[in-house]
Amino acid sequence: MSNNANDLTPLLENIETEARKSIGRGKVADYIPALARVPRDRFGMAVCAVDGTEFVTGDADSCFSIQSISKVFTLELALKMVGSAALWKRVGREPSGNAFNSLVQLESEQGLPRNPFINAGALVVTDAITARTVSPVLALLGSVRRYAARQDIYIDEEVARSEAEHGHRNAAIAHLLKAQGNLNAKVEDVLSVYYRQCAIAMSCRDVARAFLPLAAGGRQPRTGEKLMTPLRAKRINSLLLTCGLYDGVGNFAFRVGIPAKSGVGGGIAAVIPGKYAICVWSPELDELGNSLAGTRALELFARKTRLSIF
Amino acid sequence: MSNNANDLTPLLENIETEARKSIGRGKVADYIPALARVPRDRFGMAVCAVDGTEFVTGDADSCFSIQSISKVFTLELALKMVGSAALWKRVGREPSGNAFNSLVQLESEQGLPRNPFINAGALVVTDAITARTVSPVLALLGSVRRYAARQDIYIDEEVARSEAEHGHRNAAIAHLLKAQGNLNAKVEDVLSVYYRQCAIAMSCRDVARAFLPLAAGGRQPRTGEKLMTPLRAKRINSLLLTCGLYDGVGNFAFRVGIPAKSGVGGGIAAVIPGKYAICVWSPELDELGNSLAGTRALELFARKTRLSIF
Amino acid sequence: MSNNANDLTPLLENIETEARKSIGRGKVADYIPALARVPRDRFGMAVCAVDGTEFVTGDADSCFSIQSISKVFTLELALKMVGSAALWKRVGREPSGNAFNSLVQLESEQGLPRNPFINAGALVVTDAITARTVSPVLALLGSVRRYAARQDIYIDEEVARSEAEHGHRNAAIAHLLKAQGNLNAKVEDVLSVYYRQCAIAMSCRDVARAFLPLAAGGRQPRTGEKLMTPLRAKRINSLLLTCGLYDGVGNFAFRVGIPAKSGVGGGIAAVIPGKYAICVWSPELDELGNSLAGTRALELFARKTRLSIF
Amino acid sequence: MSNNANDLTPLLENIETEARKSIGRGKVADYIPALARVPRDRFGMAVCAVDGTEFVTGDADSCFSIQSISKVFTLELALKMVGSAALWKRVGREPSGNAFNSLVQLESEQGLPRNPFINAGALVVTDAITARTVSPVLALLGSVRRYAARQDIYIDEEVARSEAEHGHRNAAIAHLLKAQGNLNAKVEDVLSVYYRQCAIAMSCRDVARAFLPLAAGGRQPRTGEKLMTPLRAKRINSLLLTCGLYDGVGNFAFRVGIPAKSGVGGGIAAVIPGKYAICVWSPELDELGNSLAGTRALELFARKTRLSIF
Repeated sequence: MSNNANDLTPLLENIETEARKSIGRGKVADYIPALARVPRDRFGMAVCAVDGTEFVTGDADSCFSIQSISKVFTLELALKMVGSAALWKRVGREPSGNAFNSLVQLESEQGLPRNPFINAGALVVTDAITARTVSPVLALLGSVRRYAARQDIYIDEEVARSEAEHGHRNAAIAHLLKAQGNLNAKVEDVLSVYYRQCAIAMSCRDVARAFLPLAAGGRQPRTGEKLMTPLRAKRINSLLLTCGLYDGVGNFAFRVGIPAKSGVGGGIAAVIPGKYAICVWSPELDELGNSLAGTRALELFARKTRLSIF
Repeated sequence: MSNNANDLTPLLENIETEARKSIGRGKVADYIPALARVPRDRFGMAVCAVDGTEFVTGDADSCFSIQSISKVFTLELALKMVGSAALWKRVGREPSGNAFNSLVQLESEQGLPRNPFINAGALVVTDAITARTVSPVLALLGSVRRYAARQDIYIDEEVARSEAEHGHRNAAIAHLLKAQGNLNAKVEDVLSVYYRQCAIAMSCRDVARAFLPLAAGGRQPRTGEKLMTPLRAKRINSLLLTCGLYDGVGNFAFRVGIPAKSGVGGGIAAVIPGKYAICVWSPELDELGNSLAGTRALELFARKTRLSIF
Repeated sequence: MSNNANDLTPLLENIETEARKSIGRGKVADYIPALARVPRDRFGMAVCAVDGTEFVTGDADSCFSIQSISKVFTLELALKMVGSAALWKRVGREPSGNAFNSLVQLESEQGLPRNPFINAGALVVTDAITARTVSPVLALLGSVRRYAARQDIYIDEEVARSEAEHGHRNAAIAHLLKAQGNLNAKVEDVLSVYYRQCAIAMSCRDVARAFLPLAAGGRQPRTGEKLMTPLRAKRINSLLLTCGLYDGVGNFAFRVGIPAKSGVGGGIAAVIPGKYAICVWSPELDELGNSLAGTRALELFARKTRLSIF
Repeated sequence: MSNNANDLTPLLENIETEARKSIGRGKVADYIPALARVPRDRFGMAVCAVDGTEFVTGDADSCFSIQSISKVFTLELALKMVGSAALWKRVGREPSGNAFNSLVQLESEQGLPRNPFINAGALVVTDAITARTVSPVLALLGSVRRYAARQDIYIDEEVARSEAEHGHRNAAIAHLLKAQGNLNAKVEDVLSVYYRQCAIAMSCRDVARAFLPLAAGGRQPRTGEKLMTPLRAKRINSLLLTCGLYDGVGNFAFRVGIPAKSGVGGGIAAVIPGKYAICVWSPELDELGNSLAGTRALELFARKTRLSIF
């Protein structure tokens, strides 16, 4: 990659300026104090290329609560631990067409969550790990650190505690899954792991690095480590595209056209297969729970680089 | 009431013979061992008249788990404790048109359970008591004893523990109610009271006596005590008719035509306003969760006495 | 019935005065012009006793569009034509717990409407008649005239045409029933009969008279004609109580405690078994589609006469 | 494209052999006779490259009923006729998470269909055309012929008539849309156009050619004609991926990873942006309504060419 032609920094700065214009029109997640007090004008973006080069703008090195982005890491780990066949018997691969934390669908589909990225599905995936190892949180943290190629990634325990206190809807889902026979570990244990995985703190640069194997056929270019097969990377990318943005996947694919996973902390991780892993962060959310400025930034990136997968 | 003309004993014996014919076609509740091991061929029936006379047949003095029949006692107590206006803000008075433990309806109606006899509504009613007194179980037990005019009614703690262990669906409902802001006490506390109220053990004679005030304008004829106003008795009777038999209220009204409340322990308590309170018990249930032989016995009683309210 | 003690006229006048106070707080049905232009301040009430005496107040002899009240007449006729067993295979007897014209329930319950008084159920009942006779409207009109003991009851063809023009939701229901195999006649034919039955014009006095057999064990006291068995009368009364007021049955039973059937024309017909048939009419509706002043009048009547069935 | 390296014919023949193995495990659509009598062992496949070369195997030149594949053509035409902004106000872009002809979702989302490929959405799109031109069928047929670069594409009128006769569920949806205010033309007219668009007969080669502009940035390589902008092509591709296979989009993206649209006639059209348009046809369907052998063939094609978009 030559210095000139492919330096994305000016592009990212340009995108930041443009995307920041939507700040003020969204709503910071306020269901727990630790999220509510994040300044609404933060914006960071990091792009990691499969050749290892990195480009950043704004608050790309500030840590934020990755929240549901963690579901991708848990899924990867669970697939590794219990195998593809066993896991996909317990959770589907279809978009939900419903709010991400709906109990209705779970009840009408008798305990088989539609996909691993709605809360019900993520709880089942977390259960797969929890039932398999004595220290599921350490196993997950170890995995995330290896993906991100950084050893000091940590869990924000204040956020985790806060999530637990305000997590009655997740507790309802977990108890319903237990009643439906799709939870093996104890409800309390699964919830405890779940709240802590959501409370992992990472920067845009960390997340983009950790998603790089999905863009690079399963390999982490920074370490040369082979973390998954090319087929698994492709398949996770397909799940990101069809299920990664709650009830906004269709619009996101239409406007942006890149596989991505969002979290209510305001982060969005995205993958352009064969080229880049991206993470953008800005705390204000749209009504579906996806970062407003983050979505805009990814739309601009896809348009300007003409790198939509379609 | 003269000895001859009004002695219902031969009628009840006749009804028992007839109703027992349906034993073998239902299914004893088996979600907890303590219920599953009740012999399926038990049958008891007690009729208490507003003049104080009583008629029984079969196992009318054997104790069984009253289960959801307890929801009527809790409702009466909650109405007394928090008042009609306050309680009916938190729970509706409409039949559910759905399975009794459905979460779908609760979610789509934003935390306002349809009526006090579905599980969600009963949990809200139990919460009203739990949040009001330091010893809700004692308060409830005291109330039931006064209604039944018998001091040694007890809670079967084995059943209560068993319910708690297998109560993940109720826990899901309670957590969802909490998330929706319609539960004041702690989820664990409400569930603990709820499981114990369901585990109250009473005989047909006890239950029929305890329901007698609903037939007698609010007065307990055995003690002369005025337990509620005539208007409240009428209103509770109306709730029994429209909401007392899960998703079978319409058919029960059509076939039997008497306000009634069933429990999965196989008991059904019924009220013929101005005349009788009745309790019949037989453990085998139909597919909606109502006692099969019990329903048949009440149908025969209503037809032979021509005492349907319609 | 002595002249003095039982002359209900002063009571009805008193009730009218009181019930009229709620006029101004409701909304006249405006989905078709013919209903929208009925003056909102009309109020009539008629009470027919099983001994043949009649009491009226207000606009008790003005004709109004009976709308869904007609579903009771169609049900009676269909039961007569195809028999109880055959009809109840095609329509249930449970309250719907849903808006009266919901397609959701119909779809999830595979074409078996919950009861004969929601639109889907009424269409199936109408189909039963339509598929049985070459002139279903004449058959129905003949039946209504016999019940009301009056030969000049007619159909308001303007209303019927208007209903047809604005009836896309009913057409949707009928086509869905056809797709689900629960409609035998042609969709167009069933709808045509349905719209015309809803457009029958009757006065409060007519409707009260026509409902009198339900209060009098199946006999029309005015003519001495036996129109149905006592059992059928009881059973229809039970259906009125559990399913007669859309999604307001529970509250109506709680407040009023009398079997009744309402129509969006503002009429409510009610039955006090063994005593009275009543019809009240006032065009303004509450949010569930039941006459506001009409409900109030029936509540007052039940309270003052202490004639709730509970 | 050199003769050797890129001749896909051997690959396609190989795929046909493999895919045919799944024949016998599915079910031919039998809701209308004209579809039911298509021999179940038919299999055809055509691949058109953006450079104009074409490769085929099996029954690639036999005509079949394209059914829902037509929805892509209607969408393109409607976007052209009424513009993007106007059309997307009336129909969403999210996967449905429900059976393709569900009325439930339509009702709960007040007349805004989730996407243009479920029946409700397709009816709204058809309405957009029907309300705009006096001869919507001719306009659509003209458009399809231009896309396919072939003038003798026709409508199988027997199929259209048959669809109309058995189309009560679609009629229900159309009437509901009308009641909800999201249909401008007359219900009968919209349905008539809809049934005829579904009855268009085309071969695999025709369909692949007609989809080629979606792979070629909007241009038809065979004629050089520019049929839409590159952005519109990208966006339609994204809709195919997230909404093109009923309730099977997630699994299809996971297994195959190519934007595609299926029809109950057994056809599937697919697009590999920048490379190929593909059509495969085999009448046996899986339980979701997608061609069984067709899905398998596309999965093999994507795997062997490594051309998944992920």
